[in-house]
Amino acid sequence: MPVTRSSPAARSPAADVRPLRVGVVGVGRIGRMHAELLARQVPGAALAMVYDAFPDTAAAVGGELGVPVAATVDELLGASEVDAVAICASTDTHADLLVAAARAGKPAFCEKPISLDLAEVDRALAEIAEAGIAVQIGFNRRFDPAHRSVAEAVVDGTIGDVHLVRISSRDPAPPPLEYVRGSGGIFLDMTIHDFDMARYVTRSEVVEVFARGALRVDPSFAEVGDVDTAVVTLTHANGCLTVIDNSREAAYGYDQRVEAFGRLGMAASENPLAHTGVVRTAGGTSAPALPHFFLERYVPSYLAEWEAFVDAVRDGRTPPVTAGDGRAPLVIGLAAWRSLRENRPVAVEEVDSA
Amino acid sequence: MPVTRSSPAARSPAADVRPLRVGVVGVGRIGRMHAELLARQVPGAALAMVYDAFPDTAAAVGGELGVPVAATVDELLGASEVDAVAICASTDTHADLLVAAARAGKPAFCEKPISLDLAEVDRALAEIAEAGIAVQIGFNRRFDPAHRSVAEAVVDGTIGDVHLVRISSRDPAPPPLEYVRGSGGIFLDMTIHDFDMARYVTRSEVVEVFARGALRVDPSFAEVGDVDTAVVTLTHANGCLTVIDNSREAAYGYDQRVEAFGRLGMAASENPLAHTGVVRTAGGTSAPALPHFFLERYVPSYLAEWEAFVDAVRDGRTPPVTAGDGRAPLVIGLAAWRSLRENRPVAVEEVDSA
Amino acid sequence: MPVTRSSPAARSPAADVRPLRVGVVGVGRIGRMHAELLARQVPGAALAMVYDAFPDTAAAVGGELGVPVAATVDELLGASEVDAVAICASTDTHADLLVAAARAGKPAFCEKPISLDLAEVDRALAEIAEAGIAVQIGFNRRFDPAHRSVAEAVVDGTIGDVHLVRISSRDPAPPPLEYVRGSGGIFLDMTIHDFDMARYVTRSEVVEVFARGALRVDPSFAEVGDVDTAVVTLTHANGCLTVIDNSREAAYGYDQRVEAFGRLGMAASENPLAHTGVVRTAGGTSAPALPHFFLERYVPSYLAEWEAFVDAVRDGRTPPVTAGDGRAPLVIGLAAWRSLRENRPVAVEEVDSA
Amino acid sequence: MPVTRSSPAARSPAADVRPLRVGVVGVGRIGRMHAELLARQVPGAALAMVYDAFPDTAAAVGGELGVPVAATVDELLGASEVDAVAICASTDTHADLLVAAARAGKPAFCEKPISLDLAEVDRALAEIAEAGIAVQIGFNRRFDPAHRSVAEAVVDGTIGDVHLVRISSRDPAPPPLEYVRGSGGIFLDMTIHDFDMARYVTRSEVVEVFARGALRVDPSFAEVGDVDTAVVTLTHANGCLTVIDNSREAAYGYDQRVEAFGRLGMAASENPLAHTGVVRTAGGTSAPALPHFFLERYVPSYLAEWEAFVDAVRDGRTPPVTAGDGRAPLVIGLAAWRSLRENRPVAVEEVDSA
Repeated sequence: MPVTRSSPAARSPAADVRPLRVGVVGVGRIGRMHAELLARQVPGAALAMVYDAFPDTAAAVGGELGVPVAATVDELLGASEVDAVAICASTDTHADLLVAAARAGKPAFCEKPISLDLAEVDRALAEIAEAGIAVQIGFNRRFDPAHRSVAEAVVDGTIGDVHLVRISSRDPAPPPLEYVRGSGGIFLDMTIHDFDMARYVTRSEVVEVFARGALRVDPSFAEVGDVDTAVVTLTHANGCLTVIDNSREAAYGYDQRVEAFGRLGMAASENPLAHTGVVRTAGGTSAPALPHFFLERYVPSYLAEWEAFVDAVRDGRTPPVTAGDGRAPLVIGLAAWRSLRENRPVAVEEVDSA
Repeated sequence: MPVTRSSPAARSPAADVRPLRVGVVGVGRIGRMHAELLARQVPGAALAMVYDAFPDTAAAVGGELGVPVAATVDELLGASEVDAVAICASTDTHADLLVAAARAGKPAFCEKPISLDLAEVDRALAEIAEAGIAVQIGFNRRFDPAHRSVAEAVVDGTIGDVHLVRISSRDPAPPPLEYVRGSGGIFLDMTIHDFDMARYVTRSEVVEVFARGALRVDPSFAEVGDVDTAVVTLTHANGCLTVIDNSREAAYGYDQRVEAFGRLGMAASENPLAHTGVVRTAGGTSAPALPHFFLERYVPSYLAEWEAFVDAVRDGRTPPVTAGDGRAPLVIGLAAWRSLRENRPVAVEEVDSA
Repeated sequence: MPVTRSSPAARSPAADVRPLRVGVVGVGRIGRMHAELLARQVPGAALAMVYDAFPDTAAAVGGELGVPVAATVDELLGASEVDAVAICASTDTHADLLVAAARAGKPAFCEKPISLDLAEVDRALAEIAEAGIAVQIGFNRRFDPAHRSVAEAVVDGTIGDVHLVRISSRDPAPPPLEYVRGSGGIFLDMTIHDFDMARYVTRSEVVEVFARGALRVDPSFAEVGDVDTAVVTLTHANGCLTVIDNSREAAYGYDQRVEAFGRLGMAASENPLAHTGVVRTAGGTSAPALPHFFLERYVPSYLAEWEAFVDAVRDGRTPPVTAGDGRAPLVIGLAAWRSLRENRPVAVEEVDSA
Repeated sequence: MPVTRSSPAARSPAADVRPLRVGVVGVGRIGRMHAELLARQVPGAALAMVYDAFPDTAAAVGGELGVPVAATVDELLGASEVDAVAICASTDTHADLLVAAARAGKPAFCEKPISLDLAEVDRALAEIAEAGIAVQIGFNRRFDPAHRSVAEAVVDGTIGDVHLVRISSRDPAPPPLEYVRGSGGIFLDMTIHDFDMARYVTRSEVVEVFARGALRVDPSFAEVGDVDTAVVTLTHANGCLTVIDNSREAAYGYDQRVEAFGRLGMAASENPLAHTGVVRTAGGTSAPALPHFFLERYVPSYLAEWEAFVDAVRDGRTPPVTAGDGRAPLVIGLAAWRSLRENRPVAVEEVDSA
C-alpha cells in the first residue's frame, strides 16, 4: 500500500527549489519505471531526458512523458539540463556508463549489479573515486519500510547485538532461460539482493560463504549452469550468522522476508497480503495470497531510494548505498558460486584476492 | 490485483482505444487528487480540462498537469473534448452541477453527498433520469479491495444469509469546526460512507435507524449541533442488523473496518498497518500504527472507482454506484439525526415521505 | 503467565499452607468442571465434598475425584472440612443456596446469574451483606488474559478515557429449546456476560439500554419468546457507549471479542485460532477456524477466577466479582428485554425501581 | 491454548475399556509431568506406579498422585499391574532401561535421546527388535497441532513436492553449564528435535550436513566444547534442503517455528503469543510476548503423544515415532558436530558407518 509520498496528491513540490533533473539511460521495464517515477512522483526531481539503445523505445517513453530523447549517451551526459543520470540499461553496460558519468562529472544512480566481472567493477570504482561523483546503487529493498524497520531495530539497539539473520527471498515465477543465461545465475541475479540485505541489517562484512543449491523447480536451469533453489550460510566479521533461502518459483506470490535475531529480541519483516480481508467459515480461515508482482511490493521502496538520492546529491552528501555497497555483494556471490561448485565453505577473501 | 494498476509502470494504455476525456470541476484537495489520477494513472482515461471557482487554483492545477482551464462550468461542459465530467466542487453545488451535466448530456462522476437537502437530490435525480446520463457517486470505499472482499463473500454465498454487519469508521483527527458546521454533521459527512457500506454489503435497504451520539473528543462540536462519537443501529428490510461506530479522533490512525456475519461464516476487512515489520523483545511484541492519512489507505480504491466509471461509460452500462445509491444514505443519515435528537428508533420511511 | 498454571506440572502447591477446601453443590457439566479444577489444578485449593440433586451424578463425580458425597446441601454447608462452597446447581436454586451459605457463614463462589428475578437477587444480597460472607460471581471472562488486557489498558490509562466499547459474543451452536425456555432468554443467558464485560472494561455503570433482536438462526426461538440475534447499545454514566452483538450460531466457532476505544488508543482481544499453522498457495492463505467449545477458550479463565477467589478468601479481602456485580447485569438484561419489546431506549433506573 | 482433550472436564473415559496402566521410571521434572498427565488427563491411560533413583522424589510424586512406589526398576517392570513403561530418567540410563523393558516384554515410551552413543542405541534397538515390543520416542513436537499441520500439508499434497524446510528453534534461556556438559552439546540436546522435525516434515532421510556455530550468548559455552548459536543446512535424499537456526537464548520467549516450502505453496507454524490482546496507540501497535516456558507451548503435544502411544499399544500397531526415529537424529547430530569441527559438509553415511 503506497506510503504518503507515493500518492500523487500527496506530492508537495517545494516550488522554490529547482528540481534535480535526471536523465535516464535505458528505458526498458525497470528504466521506464524509474523514468515515470521521476517524471511524476519523486519530490524534488524531474525527468530531463531519456536514452535507449532501441530508438523506438526511447521515443515512446520520451513522448509519453514529454521529455526529449537523446541520440547518444554522450548527448545525454553532456546536456546542461541533465543534473544526474540513472543507469538502467543492461548489466553489461553499467561499468562503462558509470565511467562515462564519472568523466562527465554527473552524479549517477545505477541499477544493480555494477558488473558480473569484479575487475570491471573495480575499474568503475576507481574512476568514480577519482572523479568524486556521487553514486547510488539500486538496492531498493533497503528502502522498503518493513525491511528498513528491521535494520533500524539493529542500529538503534532495540534487539541488541545481532546473532542470526534469516532471509527468505522467493520469486513468484522463474525468468526465461535466455535471461538466466546472462544473469550471472541465481547468486548474482537474485541472491545478490539478499547479500546486500545481510550487510545492511548486520552492518558487518561477510567473511565466509557456504552455498547449497538444488534443481527443484525446473531441471532446465542445469542447462545454463544454474540452480533454482538455494540455501546460503554467511559468516560475518562480527561473528553473526546469516542464512538465506531462495527459490525461483513461489506459487503463492512474491515472498520477501528478513529477520534479525539478537541478544535482546528479534525484528522481522512479514509479507503484506494482497489486501486485508479475511473470511472464516466452518472450514477454517482464509485470506488472500501475497502480491505476485515485484512492483506491487516495492514501488514505495523505489520512490524512497530516489528521494534519498535526490537529497544526498542536493546536500552534497554521500548517497546511502555506495558503489562499494555495489561491489561487496558481487564478491559474496562469486564466493557462493565457488562454494556450491566445490561443496565447501569459501572465505570471501579467497575470491576477492583472486 | 488492485495495486498493480496504481503503479505508474503497470499502466498499459490501450493505444488503439481513445481515452475517456474527463473534465474536473473543482480542483481543491479531493478534486486535485482526481485530476492527477485521471492525468497519470487511470487506464483508458485522460484529463481534458479543469475548472475551479478560484481561478488561481484552476490555473495551478491545469499548469502542472498540462491541461486547459475552463473559464466557466458551461465552457467545460460544452467543450467537445470533454467526454465526461467529475464533480468535485463543494457539496452545495453538486445538485446544480449534476443538472447541468444532465442538460449537457455528459456522463458525470459526482463526489458524495449529492446534497444535504433531500428535495435537491430528488430534483437532480429527476433531471438525470430524464437525460439518461450515466452517473456514478464517489463512494470509493466500495472499491477498496478488502471491503469489497467482504461484499463479495456475501454475494457469492460464502458466508450465507447475512445476520449482522459491524462497521467501525474512525478518523485520525477531527476536521476544523468551520468545516463541520456546513458538513451536515457526523451522520451526513462521515457515517454516510458507512450507511452506503451497509447497503453495499447487505444488498438490503435500511428500514429503521437508532442513533446514539456523544461528545467525547471535543465539547465544541456541540456549538455546531454535532457530536463526535456515535453508535448507529440499522435494521434492514431483510431482517439483518448493522451496527456502526464512529469517532472523529482515533489517536492510532485511520481505522476502517467492515465485518459481515452470516449463517455460514463471517468476512471482515482489517486495517492495514503502515508496514509489515514486527519487533519482539522481553517487553512484548510491537508493530507500526495504522496509516493516518486517508489517501494512504484509499488511493487504490479511488483508482478502481475511476476504472469502473470509465468502463461503464465506454460500454454503455450503468455505473456501479448510481445516483439512487447517492440518495439512500442521505435518507438514512436524516433518520439518524432525528433518532439522535428524539432518542427513539426512526423508521426510514418517516423521513423519506416527510 | 496464565497458561503456566493450567499445566499440571506447573502446580506448585505451597505445602506449608493449608488449602482452601471447597464443597461443590451441583456437579452437572459446569459444576463437574469446577470440581475437577479444584481437585487437580487450582493452587491452594482442594475439593472437599460434592453434592448433587441427582445422587448418581454426585456419586460418580465424588468417586472419580476421591471425595465424599454429601446427602444434603445442609450436610455439605455444615461440614467442618468444607471451608467454602461453589454453587453450580441450576439457576433457580442460586439465591436459596447463597442465603444458606450466608447463614452457614461460608464464603461462596456462585455461577451466574444469581437469579432471573431481581427481588430474589436482592433477598440474597441482603443476607450476604448481613452475614458478611465473601461472595464471588462466576463471570469468568473477566479472567481471560486477553479480555483482561483490554480492561487493564483502560485502568492503567494506556488508551485514555474510554469513548466506545465494542463486544462481539457469538456461540458456535444454539442450545436446546428446552434450555432456552428457562434461561431468561438471550439477554439474561448470553448477553449477561457482555453486560458484565461492559461494566468491567469501562468501570462505569450503565444508565440506558437500546436492544434490537432478530430471528435469523432458527425461527423456533420465537416459540419461547426469544430472539437468536441481537444488537444492544449501552450508554454509561460516564458518557461512554458500548455496542454488543450476539448470535446463537457462529458457524466458524466460538467468537468472543472485546474492544475498548479511547482518547489515546484502542485495546482489543482477538480470537485465538485452533492452532497457529498457516498455508499459502496460489489460491490464497488458509488458517484454522476458531475453537468451537467454550472450554477450549476459557479453561485458563476458570482457573484464574478460582485463584482469585482462593486468594481473596484466604487474605480476607473482597473477591474481585462481587454479588453486586452479579446484580447489575441482570438489571441491564431486564432493561434490554423491555427495550426490545417496546422498541425504545430504556433507562436502567426505570427497571431497577420497578 | 489447550485443545479439547487437555481440559479435564472434556475427558470422557470410556468406562468399558480397561485403561493402559503405565509405570513411570524417573519422576524428575519431565517424568513428573508425564506421571501427572497419565494420572489425570490422558484418556484411556492410568498411572500405575512410579520409580525414581531418588526415593524421596518417588515417594512425593507417588503420594501426591496416589500410586505405589516401586523400590527397583525390576519391581516396576515385573509388576502385573504395569502394562507399559515410561522411561523418563537421565539420558545415560535410557538404553539399559529399553533393554530391560524389552526383556520384560513391556511396551515402552522413551524420552529422547535414546543415548548419545550410537553403539548403545544400536544395542537397544537390537533388543527391542528381538523382543518385538512397541517403542515410542518422545519427540513431542510432532504432535504439536501447528507443526503437525505443516507435515500434513506435505503429506496430503497441499504444497506439492517440498523444496525447502526452514526451522527456527530458540530457547528462552540457556540451561546451567553442568547440564550442558553432559547433554551432548547443542546438536544432540537441542537441534536433535529439529533434525527429527526435518525428517518428519519432509519424509526423506538426511544425507549431508553442514553446521555453523557461534558463541554469541555466553562465551562459557566454549568451556564445555559447545556453541550457543547455530545454523545447520541439511540435504535430504529427495533433494530437498532444510535450514535450521538455533539459539540458547531468545529474550522474547520460546520461539519454535517450522516452515515447509514446496512446488504448490508453503505451510508454516507460527508462534502463539501469551494471549490475543492487542493495543494500538499513536506510538504503534503492541501485543504480548511469546510464552517463555516450554510447557506453556507444548502441553497439548505431550498429551497427544500419549494418546497416540495408548492407541497404538491397545490396537497392536507400531507407535508413530519409532526407535529408528530415535536413532536417525542422533546420527545427524553427530555429523553436525563433525561438520562444525572440521568446517566442511559431512555425509551422514560417513558418521553412520564409522
